[in-house]
Amino acid sequence: MIYKKRLMKLIEPKILKGTRDFGPKEMAQRLSVINTMRTVFERFGYDPIETPAIEYAQTILGKYGEEGDKLTYTFEDKGGRKVALRYDQTVPTARFVAANWSSLTFPFKRYQIGPVWRADKPQRGRYREFYQCDIDIIGTDSLVADAEIAKTIYQVFSSLEMENILIRVNSRKVMNDLLDLAKIKKADRIAVIRLIDKLDKVPLKKIKKELENFLKPAQVEKLDELILSEKIRNDLSIMPEVESRKELVQLFELYKQLGIPEENITLDLTLARGLDYYTGVTYEVVIPESGLGSICGGGRYDDLTSIFTAKKFPGVGVAFGLDRIMVYLEEQKQLENISTNTQLLVANFADTQAESIELTSELQEAGINTEFYLQPDKLQKQFKYADKKDIPYIILQGSEEVASKKVLLRNMKTGEQKSMTLKQVLKTIN
Amino acid sequence: MIYKKRLMKLIEPKILKGTRDFGPKEMAQRLSVINTMRTVFERFGYDPIETPAIEYAQTILGKYGEEGDKLTYTFEDKGGRKVALRYDQTVPTARFVAANWSSLTFPFKRYQIGPVWRADKPQRGRYREFYQCDIDIIGTDSLVADAEIAKTIYQVFSSLEMENILIRVNSRKVMNDLLDLAKIKKADRIAVIRLIDKLDKVPLKKIKKELENFLKPAQVEKLDELILSEKIRNDLSIMPEVESRKELVQLFELYKQLGIPEENITLDLTLARGLDYYTGVTYEVVIPESGLGSICGGGRYDDLTSIFTAKKFPGVGVAFGLDRIMVYLEEQKQLENISTNTQLLVANFADTQAESIELTSELQEAGINTEFYLQPDKLQKQFKYADKKDIPYIILQGSEEVASKKVLLRNMKTGEQKSMTLKQVLKTIN
Repeated sequence: MIYKKRLMKLIEPKILKGTRDFGPKEMAQRLSVINTMRTVFERFGYDPIETPAIEYAQTILGKYGEEGDKLTYTFEDKGGRKVALRYDQTVPTARFVAANWSSLTFPFKRYQIGPVWRADKPQRGRYREFYQCDIDIIGTDSLVADAEIAKTIYQVFSSLEMENILIRVNSRKVMNDLLDLAKIKKADRIAVIRLIDKLDKVPLKKIKKELENFLKPAQVEKLDELILSEKIRNDLSIMPEVESRKELVQLFELYKQLGIPEENITLDLTLARGLDYYTGVTYEVVIPESGLGSICGGGRYDDLTSIFTAKKFPGVGVAFGLDRIMVYLEEQKQLENISTNTQLLVANFADTQAESIELTSELQEAGINTEFYLQPDKLQKQFKYADKKDIPYIILQGSEEVASKKVLLRNMKTGEQKSMTLKQVLKTIN
Repeated sequence: MIYKKRLMKLIEPKILKGTRDFGPKEMAQRLSVINTMRTVFERFGYDPIETPAIEYAQTILGKYGEEGDKLTYTFEDKGGRKVALRYDQTVPTARFVAANWSSLTFPFKRYQIGPVWRADKPQRGRYREFYQCDIDIIGTDSLVADAEIAKTIYQVFSSLEMENILIRVNSRKVMNDLLDLAKIKKADRIAVIRLIDKLDKVPLKKIKKELENFLKPAQVEKLDELILSEKIRNDLSIMPEVESRKELVQLFELYKQLGIPEENITLDLTLARGLDYYTGVTYEVVIPESGLGSICGGGRYDDLTSIFTAKKFPGVGVAFGLDRIMVYLEEQKQLENISTNTQLLVANFADTQAESIELTSELQEAGINTEFYLQPDKLQKQFKYADKKDIPYIILQGSEEVASKKVLLRNMKTGEQKSMTLKQVLKTIN
């Protein structure tokens, strides 16, 4: 880096609103959660892929309507090409599948974990640069795939010790069949679904009133009876025998075979999630009474790649919201024991530096994350360093210890110090 | 995703030159190399940090002269702010340290692995979006820190089974002292260093001729005697007793204590690496006779954060070139055994689907990456799927096997099939 040596005004070291720095502790926590997800994804046979952050603007724009385009970062690159930053990971994946289908193995089970960018108004929990963690099973109509997605969701949260999650399940086909029964016209459906989608925030009474603005009383009555009422919403057994009901029955049978506990998964006929895109099952994960909103969601789609190729790729997938999950885990103090990765600090005494450097190497080779304190500072300062970095143990090896071939191991929490051999150190720490 | 239902022209699923898609196999290989680096970095006590991809343009621009600015992606965001994409990870780290020094623990050992962007001409091995993997020890003058960086470099490559690397070491102070001895004027130094830097590509004779264009013959003679000649370049023992030599002697003593094999590290007085920025030791890692160029480089600097704050943060650090390392490992066929993460495919027979779903869960819970084949396709098709995905084992569990409480385990490489219990399957695979 060539800093100009001339005098210059200092630049304020600030970052853009909606973007974040992650320091050592936050990063250790994020990486721990990401690794848990990665491990579960790979346990179920999802393979990782990665696509560029910058793509041709025409690849990214126009997929989520005007609102989406407004939130997409676009610019001209040095060659005058219109480019855009990744808005999500679904569109790039669709582009990837359309470009590479002949060399991929289908069903293509992929996961993708990375940052996306949205020129949104930053708010608490809403960022301009944030991570998405997606899984998709692409190129299959199998209902087992739909069910396996739910099991993967359950397993991710169970591995994060979030046993209290609730997976809300609905089916776009069932929603359509029930709207048919209620005789809702095509033209009214989007408005009806939008209102139904608000049921988790707005009281039923108010929703019904708004429905009455453009539906006949009999239609509203029917909607209440078929979808809205508390009694029917979550109960598959009393649903009218519409054609699409069979699939839901099979799906819940599969959930049972997969071992998803009943208390963690429920039918919810009021779940809407977007409008045009989903064609089969839809999922949304919440933590009841947490006020946190959706922490994971998605569903089945007919045709992932329609804008890129005439070939059809149906599939099913969900995205996990890493940031909301981090907020919850932090509030629950489930991340407190994750701080630094260093397990051991070897203190630096001027006259035994060479021996302590060798000791450090031996500990590292034994698989212990070990730091050697870099200067022969006062011991108090070295202790303070270990303390501030949450390093649990410190080794003291002065000339006496070198002579006796033992070291002093100090537990930084209790302050206890014990003389022991290297072998005993390894045993204590592991 | 709301795809417009109207008829529209297909969008070509292409990506920008200089950017890349990484499919399952490449990603598994990249993640394996990245994980090795991460593990070594943490073994030595480096903590991860992450900074935003988008920063204020004034933070990024002006650090690497006109050339750097030309290669930086800049644009106006929706709020009219001038922003830029991360050009490297050093400047954002400097900004991070300047903004957060009061809450950091010094010496601050950090690592950072992530993409950076350069509007460069794409060539073989040169990309517009590529990963950097940096380590730095910030806030210390300690020579032990300089040496530890070399040990970390050695350990990374040794963990990647790249035992043939050579760490070239030089000292900016020594370079200055020797240029003093050769009576090179301040005004000529940049030109002289630039020419010395070319010695690994241009023959010595030609370099000397170019030096003679602006130096006196006696000066060129002296440069040859002090720096350029094969005899002196790599031999600390015959270097004139300049003041800065002592530090190099200490450094090589530390390398020995740290256990860096002599054949992997060498003094090289002709190593230049940049011009103004480095103030002490400089490092560059090559694979002799590979023609690959530098795969890692860096050095000591006096003042990381001078453009952001009046506080001084000296330090030392290097960046690893992930892409060149991947190229080398691939050429050496060292990545061939890394493909899919899935260890086992459970075949799908229509009449035992429920049992096989349960079996899949049991295997996953035992820690085996297991896929359940999603449809009761012909067995041949299921075999082909396992084969194409490099899944080493497949389990067959028809109604006979369910009755006998055994399964058939097929080794996909040998074609061998054995009837065994679940316990025996776990033993075979682990």
